[in-house]
Order: sequence, then C-alpha cells, then structure tokens
Amino acid sequence: MSSKWMDLALEQAKNAAERGEVPVGAVLVHNDQAIAMAGNRVEELADPTAHAEILVIREATRVLKMPRLVGGILYVTLEPCPMCATALSFARIKRIYYGAFDPKGGGIDHGPRIFEHSTCHHRPEVVGGILEQECAALLRNFFMEKR
Amino acid sequence: MSSKWMDLALEQAKNAAERGEVPVGAVLVHNDQAIAMAGNRVEELADPTAHAEILVIREATRVLKMPRLVGGILYVTLEPCPMCATALSFARIKRIYYGAFDPKGGGIDHGPRIFEHSTCHHRPEVVGGILEQECAALLRNFFMEKR
Repeated sequence: MSSKWMDLALEQAKNAAERGEVPVGAVLVHNDQAIAMAGNRVEELADPTAHAEILVIREATRVLKMPRLVGGILYVTLEPCPMCATALSFARIKRIYYGAFDPKGGGIDHGPRIFEHSTCHHRPEVVGGILEQECAALLRNFFMEKR
Repeated sequence: MSSKWMDLALEQAKNAAERGEVPVGAVLVHNDQAIAMAGNRVEELADPTAHAEILVIREATRVLKMPRLVGGILYVTLEPCPMCATALSFARIKRIYYGAFDPKGGGIDHGPRIFEHSTCHHRPEVVGGILEQECAALLRNFFMEKR
C-alpha cells in the first residue's frame, strides 16, 4: 500500500466536492502506474452509475483495451457500494484499499457483502480504513454544509 | 405488463448474440414509451460494466436529462446481476420485469438479493419469468455453440 495513491484519490474526492458532488474519489493502479483517476460525477452527468469506481474501471479498460484489469489495484476514499463492488469483481481487480467505512451504503463489509456469496466468482482482497479520518471528514463536512 | 416490450428486449438480446456478446437485452419504458434499449456490449466496448441494464439507464438518464428515472419500468431478458440491481435501485426504477432466472449470477432473487437489505433505500417491484422459455433458450443456445 502506498499512501501516495490514496492521497491522489483524496484529491479527486476534494475536486468532486467543489463540483457539488458527494466527495468520493478513486485511483486505479496497474503495474505501479495510475491508469485512471476520477471523482464522483453523478450530478454532472445525470447518471446514477457515474460513481468514481465505475468511472475509473471504464477509463482503465478503455486505456488498456481489455475488459478485465487482472492485477489492478483500486484506491477509493469510501467503501464501495454493491454496484461498484460487483463491477470490481467483474473487472478482476486484485486488491481494494478503501478509506471510510460505510455502514449505510457499503456493499463489501456492510449490507449485501458482495464478495461473501458463493455466486461471486472473483473476490478482490480488501483493506478498509486507509486514511480513514481524512476520507470520512471530507464526507462529513460536505453533508454538514448541505444542511 | 406488455409483452411487446419484452419482445423488443428479446430482439436486443438476439442482436447481442450476433455480435458475439452474451445475449441479454433490455428496454427502459417511461410514460409508456421506450426511452432506451440496448443489448449487452461488454466485449465490444471492453467494459465489464456495459451490461444491457446499465446501458439503458445511462441512455435514458441522458435523454431525459435527469439522474433518476422515477416511474421507469425495465424489461430485461435475464435476472439482473447485483451491479445492475443496485444501479436500478439508485435510478429509482419503479418496476422490473425479467425473463430467465439466474441462480448463478442473479442479484435480485438469488445471491446477495440486493433489494432485501435494510440498507437498500429504494426497492423496485419485481416480476421474474416473463417469456422465460424464449429468454433462457437464447442464452442456452449461445453457450452451447461456444463450447
């Protein structure tokens, strides 16, 4: 784990907040290079699937011209939701480092726990809680200002 | 339920098979009009998120210029996977009619059963088994020819 990648993901999350988006950012690393990075763009694109994780998967598969990112490592500031967790499994991501835990919307360590079902054919390794304080504070401040 | 929409979804699935894609098709209906229709394009786009359901959600939100498809009805030839089920919940789809059941990869009536968790904030109504025989036969024939 290199915290420089999570720092980059945090930067993407901050940019998302400035655009009025829920501040979540992601960086996809392959062969020790950042292949794609994105913040949440749900509002801007009027697209409920435009989570940071989905955007980096789509960008990385486009760049690498392959539908599976074997060996890929994802850094994301919030525990992925069930949609993103499933997409990360389909993309054959090797490992996921995430920041804040998400008891209300997460799909890996909470809710449907996507990787724990026998029907899940690829289970990325998962480490949660990386730079947790910073990642969570960004979300907390965003929602406090929204009130 | 109008079987003409499921017929259209089946047509999209057949087109997908001809392109060498796993034959799944979807139609998104809003105010009794087909707003978007698509077949699976995972291989063509080299994008593991390019399931028929995700493609119609993205197309419909783009056309209607809103990130939520309140009142939308989805017709799809196969039980949605957990990624698509979650996306359909985020998109506030009212009702899902699906064709073939998918014990191995489905995420609504099998596997993580996305809509059954307390953390799922919008639960579309679901009716499975519409034109089940035709929808399942298309998939079966596709995989038999692949062997």
